[in-house]
Amino acid sequence: MAEAIAFLPPRASVLSRRDNIVTDLARLVPADCLIHEERELAPFETDAFISYRRVPLAVVLPRTTAQVAAVMKYCHRHAIPVVARGAGTSLSGGAIPQEDAVVLGLSKMSRVLEVDYSNRTATVQAGVTNLSISETVGIDGFFYAPDPSSQLACTIGGNIGMNSGGAHCLKYGVTTNNLLGVRMVLVDGTVIELGGKHLDAAGYDLLGLVCGSEGQLGIVTEATVRLIAKPEGARPVLFGFDSSEEAGACVADIIGSGIIPVAIEFMDKPAIEICEAFAKAGYPLDVAALLIVEVEGSEAEMDATLKDIVEIARRHQVKTVRECQSATEAALIWKGRKSAFGATGRIADYICMDGTVPLGKLSYVLEKTAEIVERFGLRVANVFHAGDGNMHPLILFNANDPEEAMKAEEAGNEILKLCVDAGGCLTGEHGVGIEKRDLMRHQFTQPELDQQMAIRSAFDEQWILNPSKVFPLEGRR
Amino acid sequence: MAEAIAFLPPRASVLSRRDNIVTDLARLVPADCLIHEERELAPFETDAFISYRRVPLAVVLPRTTAQVAAVMKYCHRHAIPVVARGAGTSLSGGAIPQEDAVVLGLSKMSRVLEVDYSNRTATVQAGVTNLSISETVGIDGFFYAPDPSSQLACTIGGNIGMNSGGAHCLKYGVTTNNLLGVRMVLVDGTVIELGGKHLDAAGYDLLGLVCGSEGQLGIVTEATVRLIAKPEGARPVLFGFDSSEEAGACVADIIGSGIIPVAIEFMDKPAIEICEAFAKAGYPLDVAALLIVEVEGSEAEMDATLKDIVEIARRHQVKTVRECQSATEAALIWKGRKSAFGATGRIADYICMDGTVPLGKLSYVLEKTAEIVERFGLRVANVFHAGDGNMHPLILFNANDPEEAMKAEEAGNEILKLCVDAGGCLTGEHGVGIEKRDLMRHQFTQPELDQQMAIRSAFDEQWILNPSKVFPLEGRR
Repeated sequence: MAEAIAFLPPRASVLSRRDNIVTDLARLVPADCLIHEERELAPFETDAFISYRRVPLAVVLPRTTAQVAAVMKYCHRHAIPVVARGAGTSLSGGAIPQEDAVVLGLSKMSRVLEVDYSNRTATVQAGVTNLSISETVGIDGFFYAPDPSSQLACTIGGNIGMNSGGAHCLKYGVTTNNLLGVRMVLVDGTVIELGGKHLDAAGYDLLGLVCGSEGQLGIVTEATVRLIAKPEGARPVLFGFDSSEEAGACVADIIGSGIIPVAIEFMDKPAIEICEAFAKAGYPLDVAALLIVEVEGSEAEMDATLKDIVEIARRHQVKTVRECQSATEAALIWKGRKSAFGATGRIADYICMDGTVPLGKLSYVLEKTAEIVERFGLRVANVFHAGDGNMHPLILFNANDPEEAMKAEEAGNEILKLCVDAGGCLTGEHGVGIEKRDLMRHQFTQPELDQQMAIRSAFDEQWILNPSKVFPLEGRR
Repeated sequence: MAEAIAFLPPRASVLSRRDNIVTDLARLVPADCLIHEERELAPFETDAFISYRRVPLAVVLPRTTAQVAAVMKYCHRHAIPVVARGAGTSLSGGAIPQEDAVVLGLSKMSRVLEVDYSNRTATVQAGVTNLSISETVGIDGFFYAPDPSSQLACTIGGNIGMNSGGAHCLKYGVTTNNLLGVRMVLVDGTVIELGGKHLDAAGYDLLGLVCGSEGQLGIVTEATVRLIAKPEGARPVLFGFDSSEEAGACVADIIGSGIIPVAIEFMDKPAIEICEAFAKAGYPLDVAALLIVEVEGSEAEMDATLKDIVEIARRHQVKTVRECQSATEAALIWKGRKSAFGATGRIADYICMDGTVPLGKLSYVLEKTAEIVERFGLRVANVFHAGDGNMHPLILFNANDPEEAMKAEEAGNEILKLCVDAGGCLTGEHGVGIEKRDLMRHQFTQPELDQQMAIRSAFDEQWILNPSKVFPLEGRR
């Protein structure tokens, strides 16, 4: 496949010392924590973004913060690029390595270290999966709120790197709103602590800065996250509309009224069909757009909130309103939504955009997105977190056709520019990674980019941490 | 009064050019936006921290972002310190100027620029008072959540500088959780935009970094904040206990159960007496500690939540439970709490500490605080945001007795160290300012401080923005 996105050329000085580097790394981590045979490196050559791939120099999978620190100290001294990796589920190519990089995988650091209900916190290692936190505390009536679709696989470290979201983040916020502290290894191997179990932190908010910094400011090895009590009950309700415009306007009116459901998810007709075929969730097939609105609380609270939402939906000519009747049905509704990407992958290759727009612009951006994709002769399915204005157009294409692949990327870029021009932003929850790196100029002025790059340099003067990502290759400091 | 806290020595190169600087500033802002006569400078010589004071070189009160940019560009070129100022209500000395500094006051930039309900945002100039945002949108059923006790006077710009909180932040979060975007003038006069009306932002979270950076990274001139719909109803309830220990343990158990009231405020006996004498709020005078717990929602929701809270309180031998019976009574209860600092000021001078501790440590820290203050022969009143673990011991002293003032500061320092040692933090919502600057070493290791200072330098290489604050004077980069 043709490559629209450039990588940094590998450093010859590093490649030529490959064998020495491997020998040195073998002294820093146990034998089962180092991968360097070519065929064993293959699983680390890409992530969940489209088919860009690079075989890294080596992979280390440390078990302790001390091992991470030793590896960083070594790589820093020898100016060897380091790409941190959780489960490799990044949709923006954030975990794609480069030929001269050591991949630092956190998968072996997967223990829940402490659960503290009196402070409603869990302290975990960075390689813990998102879902396993909620599984650990579920028996006691708590959960960890951000819920990416990949939550079965993705790690909290990756979530922190990308400031990940999920369907239920409308009410509870994304990763940064649920993160209280981290232990982090700086580029030179120094270990620092940011935040903790307490509110606020003296000095600058480095914790917030690190969240979403895509592995460029240091390697997070432990995290303290907020636990939330499970609601008394939760109920997803389906609202079907005859047009995407009415569905979009309905979302803006719900939020504008001040109601904050737990989730408002949007599917257009292609997405409904794809998800229904896969999950048999009972989505209505005779509508042009579907909202899944979840409310929670006591039965009385849910009834009251739903009454207000239904009233707003009626003003937008809602065609179908279907409350789910059982826990099984609710689970199916969410299964259909959360497997949307996988279900789409069964019928076509796709790239998933991740722009965010002000809610008043939802309908407009949906309409323009359809126009853009049509102009490129491609198809699109929209399934996204509407309450947050976080759009996910899935552009369908055939990856075996290089020309079509290129068109899909071009259409994606136009859609993201559209989001920015509508007062929105390139990302919602997937990060910039390599995917949107070259679009950063569309979002930011040069002084704005300069300021971000100055921060990066203040953490990593040599730019060895995940170097191909986030900032356009041209005009770096 | 003796000065326990050192200021940076004024730059002779700046002082000697005072008249020229004033002449130059007069070209950059209209005549009514520049103050330079000694007697007119007096109101700007201190803030709401204890009696440290310095008369600044001059005060500019710009009306536009362009004027702020012109002043910054000039001061940057000539290495003149600049201290940003909102309403001067800082409790940590964040707005205390220095003799060689231009105070950049935002008070004339006090307009609400836009209210956008479909995105639930308000965009305001930095000099708008906190309360006036809620007043503007109140008629439409919305409010701005963070509510510092000084909300009638304090500005959103100051709130952003200090990441301010308030009694109702337990549920809705502090400033950083309610801030969506800013327009900011960098040290060299460049104007940048951070965030906006959309969720998330591409690249690093500079918005989060700026929030709480105490005027050291740039001058915020406009802000876009989150609006929240007013609840159907709200009800403060008084819980009286025979000991601070039981009250503290009750707070930890409420939070540990997963319930999140809108507010849990704590008053010990001295605070109850002081506030009751002032506000006649009907606080019980026969208890050792009082919690004001506010719940909100429909009547049924409030009843259900309160039932659970009362049950927990009974396990802690609650002596008095009093639900308020009317809106008037509710207003009085909050008036008593919110005027605690003013009411204390009627009977003694005081300094207000602002440490934050994990909830499991509330009782322990209260007990140790009492011991510390007693050892110094002083009195203390505790009135604070217990649900957040954000303690506010008010140390009472006589400011006309230099020795007693020094003791009060020393006792305060010991209390803040106690908070850190208990796994907490130097600040909750008042910032570091000049007050806690020299305690930063107790909270942070040298690499942690170095990393923060590197960030500061990446924004302000000459360290001209609010230079005496946040970082210990020794060992700066």
